[in-house]
Amino acid sequence: MAKLSGRLVVGQSGGPTQVINNSLVGVIEQARKQVEVTDVYGSLHGITGVLKDDFVDLGQQPDSVLAGLRHTPGAALGSVRYKLQPEDYARIVHVLRSHQVRFFCYNGGNDSMDTAYQVHLAAQKEGYELYCVGIPKTVDNDLAYTDHCPGYGSAARFVAHAVRDSGMDTESMGPSSPVKIIEIMGRNAGWLTAAAALARQEDGDPPHLIYVPERPVDERTVVNDVRRTVEQRGHCVIALSEGAVSDAGTGEVDAFGHRMKGGAAEYLARVVSEQLDLKVRLDRPNYLQRSFTATLSAVDADEAYLVGQTAVTLATAGVSGVMVTLQREPGDAYRCTTGTAPLDQVANAERFLPDEYINAQGNDVTEAFLEYARPLIGPPLQGLVRLEHLPVPARAGGQK
Amino acid sequence: MAKLSGRLVVGQSGGPTQVINNSLVGVIEQARKQVEVTDVYGSLHGITGVLKDDFVDLGQQPDSVLAGLRHTPGAALGSVRYKLQPEDYARIVHVLRSHQVRFFCYNGGNDSMDTAYQVHLAAQKEGYELYCVGIPKTVDNDLAYTDHCPGYGSAARFVAHAVRDSGMDTESMGPSSPVKIIEIMGRNAGWLTAAAALARQEDGDPPHLIYVPERPVDERTVVNDVRRTVEQRGHCVIALSEGAVSDAGTGEVDAFGHRMKGGAAEYLARVVSEQLDLKVRLDRPNYLQRSFTATLSAVDADEAYLVGQTAVTLATAGVSGVMVTLQREPGDAYRCTTGTAPLDQVANAERFLPDEYINAQGNDVTEAFLEYARPLIGPPLQGLVRLEHLPVPARAGGQK
Repeated sequence: MAKLSGRLVVGQSGGPTQVINNSLVGVIEQARKQVEVTDVYGSLHGITGVLKDDFVDLGQQPDSVLAGLRHTPGAALGSVRYKLQPEDYARIVHVLRSHQVRFFCYNGGNDSMDTAYQVHLAAQKEGYELYCVGIPKTVDNDLAYTDHCPGYGSAARFVAHAVRDSGMDTESMGPSSPVKIIEIMGRNAGWLTAAAALARQEDGDPPHLIYVPERPVDERTVVNDVRRTVEQRGHCVIALSEGAVSDAGTGEVDAFGHRMKGGAAEYLARVVSEQLDLKVRLDRPNYLQRSFTATLSAVDADEAYLVGQTAVTLATAGVSGVMVTLQREPGDAYRCTTGTAPLDQVANAERFLPDEYINAQGNDVTEAFLEYARPLIGPPLQGLVRLEHLPVPARAGGQK
Repeated sequence: MAKLSGRLVVGQSGGPTQVINNSLVGVIEQARKQVEVTDVYGSLHGITGVLKDDFVDLGQQPDSVLAGLRHTPGAALGSVRYKLQPEDYARIVHVLRSHQVRFFCYNGGNDSMDTAYQVHLAAQKEGYELYCVGIPKTVDNDLAYTDHCPGYGSAARFVAHAVRDSGMDTESMGPSSPVKIIEIMGRNAGWLTAAAALARQEDGDPPHLIYVPERPVDERTVVNDVRRTVEQRGHCVIALSEGAVSDAGTGEVDAFGHRMKGGAAEYLARVVSEQLDLKVRLDRPNYLQRSFTATLSAVDADEAYLVGQTAVTLATAGVSGVMVTLQREPGDAYRCTTGTAPLDQVANAERFLPDEYINAQGNDVTEAFLEYARPLIGPPLQGLVRLEHLPVPARAGGQK
């Protein structure tokens, strides 16, 4: 392993998270400590910053900026969704070489890990010594080979808060509007929707139904589930993954003929409303799920920092072609250390909720899921209360 | 004014807020202190609890419940939307008389103040001595005769956080999805949408456009505003009131022929996307705006408590037929005291954003609005940062 020295470039890619900039600060602060790193540069808008030779100096950022980044949402370097073309490879190596860049850290989901892998391969092919390390990030929590993804814990905390609080609102409205559907991000994987269950304190707390893409439901199942829940409790709060409704149920397209984002929630709302003659209300917080910082999980923020820091330690130690992973330590107290996984394997995998995290009926999560996810969102939410049931004996007669 | 003694009934009505139960606790704790009040009862689901003789004993609730209610969303007594019928009046007086109720406090918006007024009149007509006082509450902030409404401050804090954080997410995505529309509650009044401006720290911060129902816009204006903003900044974040688009622009109806809630936001998203060929993303947090407690404003919670407490003080002092109001004291430091307004006047009025709070173009708020609203959301949000502009000189040549 060469103890090469040179510049380090870091980029952010794909959908941002609440804690994405914690990883950036982890990279910057570790890079400043490593003697191998002569300067740390940020590539603006992901890999396109490299292609365009468009970098910002991160080594000179004031401490106040680094501190502020730890609670600033959005990708501070700008993000991008760009799939590398074969003709880009030589250009990338040329630009990195021109700046004497020897270390490349790339933060994103599996598409971004593919980009990092292509950069790693391109450097190898051109015979340019470069150490490429991926940094995981996604609110979807769908990267394989890691216990969980930085970004998931904070988004999960937001979702738990949102479903619980909006669910309490629904509960209090009585029969005038007894059904609420809250649409949660996740086309293919239900991790974030499952997190809605994390705020339940007791039996009967919202959400009453959780539908995830791993067990797509048809409209008849939903209608029956809702009918039964409303009969039992008087109301029903549903956490619904964007992708949880089987194709049979969703024919909605937008003006361009594209399937509408959120078509599933609106479709189900209409079906339940028509078939059960109940008023249904919808919440679609969409991008708030990955940006709302008032519910940032400190555990998540610290782990995002850790994986950024570790990427630099690895790259400067001569490791390349891997993504940093989080490994949960055995034992009662929650603790994660870091590991690595090959970039190409991460790029080509997608991790779904395992069967044992979904109940038999496919409309809720299991205790095993709650044990997995609970430590990730930080301290428990501040508990809610209901009035004690202390009925006053009727005195007026009639009409009761 | 007789110093009558008897039971006190409190009810909650209309859409809940984050702090609605603070008013309930204010009522309960003050009622316990007043020698005139023999018991304090809660009417379940607003006025229907009275009609059905369905009360819960609030005097015996444990302290832990009262403490927990101060951060519990939803109406703890259950809410209702029910318009009193003339045949209900005698029944209401009969039930209240059967329980020796002499004090009636009712918490809600202008429809609820109308209910409280009808109860006040019915008691007078039946010759039953009853003291009725209204307690204001609405996230819409549209009640007249009060500086602002309890509930508004916390909803406004949520909206400011949401638009800022989701706006930073949009800013970081670059040209791939440069336009975000965030739909805010408010069919007739733009107070809550205007609050989106409260989180701006510097010029260029989101939101870039604010549209309120007081100045309905047509699609051509919006398209021009968005085009100009994207040309100038590269992206555009819009805070849109549910009711801000003039009728010409919204023909969307649901399967039942009803105009779709949120039709305006979806319609505008489609128009902007088609006419400017830009990707538009939508956030519709809906009921989160009135329930999400992680952004509760302490000022708002304390004022909600105060108006509940004051309602009891007034009723037990022999006042009836009024709503408690908040009166802002002159001077530099923000401070509110309470006053009263006649229930029938409140019931028949609706308060809109005054002209001086909206800019000339009708696409933003003024500094006067910010001065009005700033103290209501509690301490300033934790400030965000952007990276310092420290560009690295290009070295690679070509393609820049």
